[in-house]
Amino acid sequence: VRADNLRVVLVSPRNPLNIGAAARAMSNFGFLHLGVVNAYDVAFREARSAVGASAVVGNAVEYASIADAVADCSLVVGTTSIGNRQLQHPLRRLEFGGRLIRRALENERVALLFGSEKFGLSNEDLSWCHWLIRIPTREEHGSMNLGQAVAVCLYELIRRPATGKPESRKAASSAKVDRITDYLLEALRESGYARTLSTPAKIRRMIRRLNIPEQEGEAWMGLMRQIVWKLTQRGPSTSPPSPR
Amino acid sequence: VRADNLRVVLVSPRNPLNIGAAARAMSNFGFLHLGVVNAYDVAFREARSAVGASAVVGNAVEYASIADAVADCSLVVGTTSIGNRQLQHPLRRLEFGGRLIRRALENERVALLFGSEKFGLSNEDLSWCHWLIRIPTREEHGSMNLGQAVAVCLYELIRRPATGKPESRKAASSAKVDRITDYLLEALRESGYARTLSTPAKIRRMIRRLNIPEQEGEAWMGLMRQIVWKLTQRGPSTSPPSPR
Repeated sequence: VRADNLRVVLVSPRNPLNIGAAARAMSNFGFLHLGVVNAYDVAFREARSAVGASAVVGNAVEYASIADAVADCSLVVGTTSIGNRQLQHPLRRLEFGGRLIRRALENERVALLFGSEKFGLSNEDLSWCHWLIRIPTREEHGSMNLGQAVAVCLYELIRRPATGKPESRKAASSAKVDRITDYLLEALRESGYARTLSTPAKIRRMIRRLNIPEQEGEAWMGLMRQIVWKLTQRGPSTSPPSPR
Repeated sequence: VRADNLRVVLVSPRNPLNIGAAARAMSNFGFLHLGVVNAYDVAFREARSAVGASAVVGNAVEYASIADAVADCSLVVGTTSIGNRQLQHPLRRLEFGGRLIRRALENERVALLFGSEKFGLSNEDLSWCHWLIRIPTREEHGSMNLGQAVAVCLYELIRRPATGKPESRKAASSAKVDRITDYLLEALRESGYARTLSTPAKIRRMIRRLNIPEQEGEAWMGLMRQIVWKLTQRGPSTSPPSPR
C-alpha cells in the first residue's frame, strides 16, 4: 500500500493518551502523516511531550479546519460507529471500504477522518467526506476507543490476503520413529504393562500419529533411551547410557 | 465465528488502562471471556473499578498460572512482536494464523495469549503455546500497545472477506440532467460567459460526467433555477420562481 499518500486526521480529540495511541498505531503500520483539527490544546501538547511519543506525533500538523486538513486529498473518508445518527453518506464495512481506500492510495492522496472520543464526527464534519466506513463491531457495543479504531483501520489497509496452506512440518524419519517406538515398547515390557491393553501394533500406530517433528526426533530418542536404561539397570550405577 | 470458544488471556499485565482497553475491544467484537494471569493486583482492581468498565472486565477470571488459564483449551496461540528472541515455535502472520484460529473455534476452545506491555510473553510462557502469531507491523517499530494489539487480532477473527463491487449509485434521469444543463447554459448566457470558452456541447458533457445522483437531481434543478431567475429578473421583485 502507498502509505505515504494517506493523511490520518483526528478531529477534536480531547485525550492526549488517545492522540499518542493513534500516532503509535500509525507508526506501527507505517502511516506517518498525522493531522489534528481543533484539538484541545493541552491534550495536543501533552501528547507531544509524552515519554516515548513517536515521531508521528512530533511531526503532526495542526489545522484550523477540516477543509485545511484535507485540502490536498482527492478522497476523504470518515469513520463512524453509526449510533443514532441518520447518515446521508454511503456507509461501507471496513473490509470493503478498506479495499477502495487501498486502491485510491495508488494514485491519489486520501484523508481518513476520526471524530472525538465522545461524539465522533459531527454532521458538519461529515459533509467533507465522500463516504464513510464502519468497523464491524457488534450492535450492543459499537463505539470503539479512538486509538484502537485507528489501529484496526490501518491494519485493514496494510493487511495481505492469507494465502497458501499451513506449512506442513517435516516429520522425523520412519527409522527414527521406529527406534523411539522400540524404546517405548521395551520400557513398557520392563514396567510390566499388560500387552492385552495395547498391542505393539497399536502402540506403533499411536506413535506414528504423534507426527514427531524431525528436529525433535533425537531428543525423543534420547529421553526414551534414558528411561529404558534406568528400567533395565540391575543394581546401582550412575553411568549414563551411551547411544546404541 | 464461534466467539464463545475463545479465551483471551493477558499474562502479567501491569497497566489498568490496558486491561480495560483489551476488555473494551473484546466487548466491541463480541469476545466475552477474559482471563488474567499474574496481574499486578492493583492494576486488576483499578481496571475493574474504572468508570465505564465493560462487563468483560467484571467477568474476567484471575488464574494463578497459564496452565490453569488454558486448561480447557485444545489450541493455545501466543502473540509476539518477535524482537530479538529466538523463537522455537512456528510463527504466522495474523492474516494466516487468524484463519486457522477461526477454523479451530468451530470445534474447540482456543486460548489467545498476550504478554506484558514491557516484555511480551517469556520463553516459559511460550512453552504453553502450539504456535505464535505476529501482527504485521513494520520492522522499525514492531511493538504494539497491548489494547491495540488485542483489538487488531480480534478484528481479524471477526472480519469477513470483502466481496462484491462498489454499489453503483443510481444517476438522475437524462431528462433531469438535460434540464439542469439548460439552466446552466441559460445562466452562462445571462452572465455573459464567452461561448468560445466552452461550447454548449462541451458543457453538456461536463455535466454528464458529474453523474448527478438521482436523489439530488431535484435539488440541483432547484438551485440552478433560482440562479437563472435572479439573473433574468428585470427590476426589483421578491417573488420566488415557480417550477416550469
